[in-house]
Amino acid sequence: MPYVNIKVTKEGGPEGAGPSSEQKAELIKGVTELLEKVLHKNPATTFVVIDEVALEDWGIGGLSVPEFRKLKS
Amino acid sequence: MPYVNIKVTKEGGPEGAGPSSEQKAELIKGVTELLEKVLHKNPATTFVVIDEVALEDWGIGGLSVPEFRKLKS
Amino acid sequence: MPYVNIKVTKEGGPEGAGPSSEQKAELIKGVTELLEKVLHKNPATTFVVIDEVALEDWGIGGLSVPEFRKLKS
Amino acid sequence: MPYVNIKVTKEGGPEGAGPSSEQKAELIKGVTELLEKVLHKNPATTFVVIDEVALEDWGIGGLSVPEFRKLKS
Amino acid sequence: MPYVNIKVTKEGGPEGAGPSSEQKAELIKGVTELLEKVLHKNPATTFVVIDEVALEDWGIGGLSVPEFRKLKS
Amino acid sequence: MPYVNIKVTKEGGPEGAGPSSEQKAELIKGVTELLEKVLHKNPATTFVVIDEVALEDWGIGGLSVPEFRKLKS
Repeated sequence: MPYVNIKVTKEGGPEGAGPSSEQKAELIKGVTELLEKVLHKNPATTFVVIDEVALEDWGIGGLSVPEFRKLKS
Repeated sequence: MPYVNIKVTKEGGPEGAGPSSEQKAELIKGVTELLEKVLHKNPATTFVVIDEVALEDWGIGGLSVPEFRKLKS
Repeated sequence: MPYVNIKVTKEGGPEGAGPSSEQKAELIKGVTELLEKVLHKNPATTFVVIDEVALEDWGIGGLSVPEFRKLKS
Repeated sequence: MPYVNIKVTKEGGPEGAGPSSEQKAELIKGVTELLEKVLHKNPATTFVVIDEVALEDWGIGGLSVPEFRKLKS
Repeated sequence: MPYVNIKVTKEGGPEGAGPSSEQKAELIKGVTELLEKVLHKNPATTFVVIDEVALEDWGIGGLSVPEFRKLKS
Repeated sequence: MPYVNIKVTKEGGPEGAGPSSEQKAELIKGVTELLEKVLHKNPATTFVVIDEVALEDWGIGGLSVPEFRKLKS
């Protein structure tokens, strides 16, 4: 009965928003199948929770993502 | 000084939204009392954080909740 | 299909260890019943995960719990 | 390669909202530098994720924050 | 720059312990590739953290996993 | 009343173990002071929880940390 939490930045989906419903469904399907294949976990009791995080709420290299990308570009 | 995180799907409240303020207050009260009763934890330093998760962000059985319920019904 | 994570300090159980198996079972039962009563959540798809945290890994008031208690006593 | 999650109540920022972008950037910078100073962690692989939690979703003392503050004042 | 947390019960690996190092490596590889395929996320900044949870610390159906399985068998 | 969770790999401390008690106390003090300085959060209700993660349980670049470092060296 695994529990998986996936956090991604809110971007890259249609119209600059986060992942589309289809992309989320693919993530849920893919990670559930992975746990079934590798650890024989039952999909019926595999939970997946996806969190979309605003760019300014995510930090890397000591900078928020928008600042980080400005510096890198 | 316990920390409790409760994640529920955003539904079942008034007008199809997530839990009402009253329901959230009941959850906070109930889980804090439970920790006091079972483990003698001081309510003054018991934190509870409730997250409402959109239906398409929650997966079970390899499907998002909306797809899962369509199949089950 | 709620997911609940309960973090408590590793203490207060038998022989100075964390909560006993019986206490953990009471927490699991209590919080699952709470979610059923308040939000009509199905216990069959309610997950509870308990984490015991070593005292030196928990901070409050800018101090680890052992330092905090020394100051308070 | 540390991962830091900071949860704060959604308040105290400009116009009653949560922390401003500048305050978030300060938190990201500060905690990344702290991990570099204390544990020599590489900022390039230090992730920080900030969550703003609505006041009614945060409980302390068995009450939601708005109820808790009403009682205290 | 996704962050993925996978929680599984501590079982099913060699000698009744949790997943083997090889199984964990497969999970890390699989979920990182999934995020690259579905959302074009860069593996270099994809973090995966696996937690093994003791059976008595995991609850489902209002019971700890050991009690739950006793009832089901 | 912030809640901060810091996850670091279990290494870099005395005798190859994770951070020492002193280093953890520094992290707790530093992050609590940061939240007080930037957001005027009260240290008395600031919680910090530190998790040490085994190297094989942490993945980056699609590899567990031990494999990742072997490739890089």
